[in-house]
Amino acid sequence: MRMRTCVSSMAAGGNMEWLKSVKGVILDMCGVLYDSGEGGGQAIHGSIEAVKRLMDSGLIVRFCTNETQNTREKFVQKLRAMGFDISVSHVFSPAPALVRILRERRLRPHLLVHDDLMPEFDDVDTSSPNCVVIGDAADKFSYQNLNEAFRVLIGLEKPLLFSLGQGRYYKETDGLKLDVGVFMKALEYACDVQAEVVGKPSADFFQTVLNDMSLQPHEAVMIGDDLLNDVGGAQRCGMKGIQVRTGKYRPSDEKHPSVRADGYVDDLAAATDAILTNP
Amino acid sequence: MRMRTCVSSMAAGGNMEWLKSVKGVILDMCGVLYDSGEGGGQAIHGSIEAVKRLMDSGLIVRFCTNETQNTREKFVQKLRAMGFDISVSHVFSPAPALVRILRERRLRPHLLVHDDLMPEFDDVDTSSPNCVVIGDAADKFSYQNLNEAFRVLIGLEKPLLFSLGQGRYYKETDGLKLDVGVFMKALEYACDVQAEVVGKPSADFFQTVLNDMSLQPHEAVMIGDDLLNDVGGAQRCGMKGIQVRTGKYRPSDEKHPSVRADGYVDDLAAATDAILTNP
Repeated sequence: MRMRTCVSSMAAGGNMEWLKSVKGVILDMCGVLYDSGEGGGQAIHGSIEAVKRLMDSGLIVRFCTNETQNTREKFVQKLRAMGFDISVSHVFSPAPALVRILRERRLRPHLLVHDDLMPEFDDVDTSSPNCVVIGDAADKFSYQNLNEAFRVLIGLEKPLLFSLGQGRYYKETDGLKLDVGVFMKALEYACDVQAEVVGKPSADFFQTVLNDMSLQPHEAVMIGDDLLNDVGGAQRCGMKGIQVRTGKYRPSDEKHPSVRADGYVDDLAAATDAILTNP
Repeated sequence: MRMRTCVSSMAAGGNMEWLKSVKGVILDMCGVLYDSGEGGGQAIHGSIEAVKRLMDSGLIVRFCTNETQNTREKFVQKLRAMGFDISVSHVFSPAPALVRILRERRLRPHLLVHDDLMPEFDDVDTSSPNCVVIGDAADKFSYQNLNEAFRVLIGLEKPLLFSLGQGRYYKETDGLKLDVGVFMKALEYACDVQAEVVGKPSADFFQTVLNDMSLQPHEAVMIGDDLLNDVGGAQRCGMKGIQVRTGKYRPSDEKHPSVRADGYVDDLAAATDAILTNP
């Protein structure tokens, strides 16, 4: 079985020692728990049971997503409908993190985000904007809306741009779609600024999750399908990172010139096997 | 008079010697000859006469634009209607330059360009595209069209992207508009490639103009309103560069950290005064 081979390949590499100190697991969602697609997508084989096994084991489990096409509540509802036993308070997504930042820094955003994400900003003052926020707005990334965001930004004394994640693209049933990072780069170039990224791979974002778990970085492992944003981001915070061969994984990831995961496994079930057999 | 002050400020700097070796002048168009705006724009005061004086002086005069919202023929028609005595063969713009490159390298482009530019590509094979070309497509930069260009690009074994210029933004009567460079950066990030820029500030583009003038770089001066693309680009080719204080000029340009023009003058008329009084 390929799954066993992968688990043993982690062991064979002599890298299993670190699993012994793991007290908590942070799980990426899309591409690890489920594949997106028609009707909201479907659970990846074995992942519902894997999440349950991790939780039952006494490990601290949290979920960390860059999802910005939905409110956190709606998103969790979708996952629960697939069969995952997940509570909203255990899910960390960029929009609530950004709302905290806006409040702390007394910022009023011009929002270029998906319509379904708008309720996250219900209590946010958007009058006389002094910053611009972009999320994965998809079809709302029209020339007109981009110009509007650009004009707000260039009109500020000190342009301030927040990007909810910095993904390049993702896959939907009707093909590849450009993600928010692409439009972040566009506005960065237009205004000669550097965006503040809220969400993975931002160190602040990972740290918020670790704080909630009351764990030190070396006590936690991140499991994701995105080598740079999940694995690389977690490693830069001092965590370990495992890449699953589901979702947006590509074989070339295992030969990446600068980021090397602490383990590569076929899927979340295999990662769970590895973690629970090395208590 | 401010114009005289500027001319003499060039002289006072002790930098006038180089004007004696100038045998040819390359003129940027928008912002130097005319300001764009309603009804196609209007000539900048004194520029029609300045062009005539330069031509009558025996200097070799060429025009160099990054205009890609029109065919070169239509564009020259517009300038002639304003009163400029300009012939199409003396105008260098990115689209004809790109068509030559496509032919030489046997490339078939997927085109994301302005509808009014399309006739430039009438004789170009666009079947089974093996590269992507973007110009200032303006409203055609929709999420759908960007995704389409992206999918062609990412589907190529070696993604090849051409950008007709790399401008950040420009001003129209209804406000600032994002230029092609912004979408170039977006697609570059999405596909992890670097675009080939055709047009200013590409050295190849300037060299084509110099070849047509049969001049060495040190014998020519570029006059433009864009410090980076006109002045900086020309200087990197070994030409001199004068910035006019019209068009997109901003006072901060004169304190730019890395690019310093060989002269700053109020407008094309002042530049012409300086050149013709230093034969």
